[in-house]
Amino acid sequence: MMSPRPFDDIRELFNNLPGADEAARTAARTRQAHLTKPQGSLGQLENLAEFLAGWQGGRPHVDAPLVAIFAGNHGVVAKGVSPFPQSVTKSMVDNFTQGGAAINQICKTFDLSLKIFELALEKPTNDMTEAPAMEERECAATMAFGMEALVSQPDILCLGEMGIGNTTVASAIYHALYGGAPEDWVGRGTGADDAGLKRKAEAVRAAVSLHQAHLSDPLEVLRRLGGREIAAIAGAILAARIQKTPVILDGFVVFAAAAVLHALNPGALDHCLAGHVSAEKAHRVVLERLGMTPLLDLGMRLGEGSGAAIAVAVLKAAVNCHNGMATFDEAGVAGKSS
Amino acid sequence: MMSPRPFDDIRELFNNLPGADEAARTAARTRQAHLTKPQGSLGQLENLAEFLAGWQGGRPHVDAPLVAIFAGNHGVVAKGVSPFPQSVTKSMVDNFTQGGAAINQICKTFDLSLKIFELALEKPTNDMTEAPAMEERECAATMAFGMEALVSQPDILCLGEMGIGNTTVASAIYHALYGGAPEDWVGRGTGADDAGLKRKAEAVRAAVSLHQAHLSDPLEVLRRLGGREIAAIAGAILAARIQKTPVILDGFVVFAAAAVLHALNPGALDHCLAGHVSAEKAHRVVLERLGMTPLLDLGMRLGEGSGAAIAVAVLKAAVNCHNGMATFDEAGVAGKSS
Repeated sequence: MMSPRPFDDIRELFNNLPGADEAARTAARTRQAHLTKPQGSLGQLENLAEFLAGWQGGRPHVDAPLVAIFAGNHGVVAKGVSPFPQSVTKSMVDNFTQGGAAINQICKTFDLSLKIFELALEKPTNDMTEAPAMEERECAATMAFGMEALVSQPDILCLGEMGIGNTTVASAIYHALYGGAPEDWVGRGTGADDAGLKRKAEAVRAAVSLHQAHLSDPLEVLRRLGGREIAAIAGAILAARIQKTPVILDGFVVFAAAAVLHALNPGALDHCLAGHVSAEKAHRVVLERLGMTPLLDLGMRLGEGSGAAIAVAVLKAAVNCHNGMATFDEAGVAGKSS
Repeated sequence: MMSPRPFDDIRELFNNLPGADEAARTAARTRQAHLTKPQGSLGQLENLAEFLAGWQGGRPHVDAPLVAIFAGNHGVVAKGVSPFPQSVTKSMVDNFTQGGAAINQICKTFDLSLKIFELALEKPTNDMTEAPAMEERECAATMAFGMEALVSQPDILCLGEMGIGNTTVASAIYHALYGGAPEDWVGRGTGADDAGLKRKAEAVRAAVSLHQAHLSDPLEVLRRLGGREIAAIAGAILAARIQKTPVILDGFVVFAAAAVLHALNPGALDHCLAGHVSAEKAHRVVLERLGMTPLLDLGMRLGEGSGAAIAVAVLKAAVNCHNGMATFDEAGVAGKSS
């Protein structure tokens, strides 16, 4: 049962975010120091093992990783912001279901489960340049729907998205949260030409200008500018935090949801990793704003959770090294002389 | 049967290096353009699929990846260049054999074969600060031994090393090839303190000074300064080229072998990828010199082929996307409007 102001319930959650298990994290760090390698020589792999130990509350594991893709459609597509027709969102969802997309191959490669969440594709959100994209109840309900990604209790959650036009929506969110000029936040997305890029910037400018009076509240940014997949991803990140499930964020669009949560509470993403830095140019700036270092930098800009899913491979290596390596004592290897 | 000047035989090989199959590479590029994703949106994954197609001469594959680790011992350890005793080289080889090292866990994680090549560990090379590390025949024979890594016909070869003291040896090679000051090329390796770092720089300075008159010839750089594992790796890279097998190079020490080959022929590494950039500080400079972009940047500095082996995960994702994705026609997805 939702209250008349459902955002108030969500705001309440942000006052009680659980932290990591510091004892488990310390135990992992201690074990790391005894493994047969020079101290610190596995770099990020050591940090990752400790991070997972802390959030998972014990020996780190990657036994049930899940990629959740949220798909939405956007009224702002009417403004010519994408070179692809809106029907492609549904076609790509069908492609995911049939196993033909990039994310399917990546999931098979690394043994990841995949779930697709369709968000009323036949009914795009309102055009953000003319009205709030969503009503408050709708936005809150969509966030709650996103929490469904946690139902199967994955031990790592990768978040991805699909939605023609959603890089424009994400750019509007960044512009609203971080200021600057619309041009600072728009990029070529799926392949906009110069005219398309200009239309994207104009849409961002118009939307932020229309809603300006309400944008000091991050949840208002989310409902007025954001699409349903972005709201659902915000809900999934929040639910993962409540369950202490580590999250791997994907690229430019997924980070728009993360940025909203971070604006509500700077600690809200402590359980999250940046899977990669996207080739969509402003993503690097967003990562810097959030103080996050991406695990991968492969020039990808596909979405679908593809960068996050490949990053799971790095986590697997980290966890298996941490759990499987011999200690100096076990292997009879002499340590460093002091 | 070796000639009286075995390096002459090796030099001959560099005049006849085979190139990639450009038709296979073009076919891969053409297929890429029809897959259900925006053009170029898989970034490096697309480049990797094309690279593998070219060198493998058809559809790219990662069916029989091998990690080959070469282990050697170094006379220069007597100069106090490592905080670990020389016995650790053999202990770590035993650890590899028993499955307790980081590389064993990474190989298990990504289903890679692992072979360890021990290079007369009981008889370290000469101390490069006092004499040439190897005789010409020994160096050439070690290069030939390195070619054994190709015998099982891997379809991807990852090259790694183990050898207490070998970051000092690699630094000497870089200083000889690229100039600058010894301090530019030495780093903390397995964990040298400030005094150890100074001893490393002094050893590099002394070795390069002693052999200066002969160092315009890259093969003389290799035999006078290089250890056996570095010579064997040079041989493995060369043999892989002759068999057109793609190679993933690991970190700071493996690249010393690669740098020697590159100095002999700037095209000698065209079949090679940089698996990662090491935290050993000068590795980034070496990659820039060689014009190579690392696939991963995870702050690792372990050796053992560990960075190269994790990079295979990225290659697997690339190949599986390339071969497994549906085309726009197959999936009934509308393409980009012009």
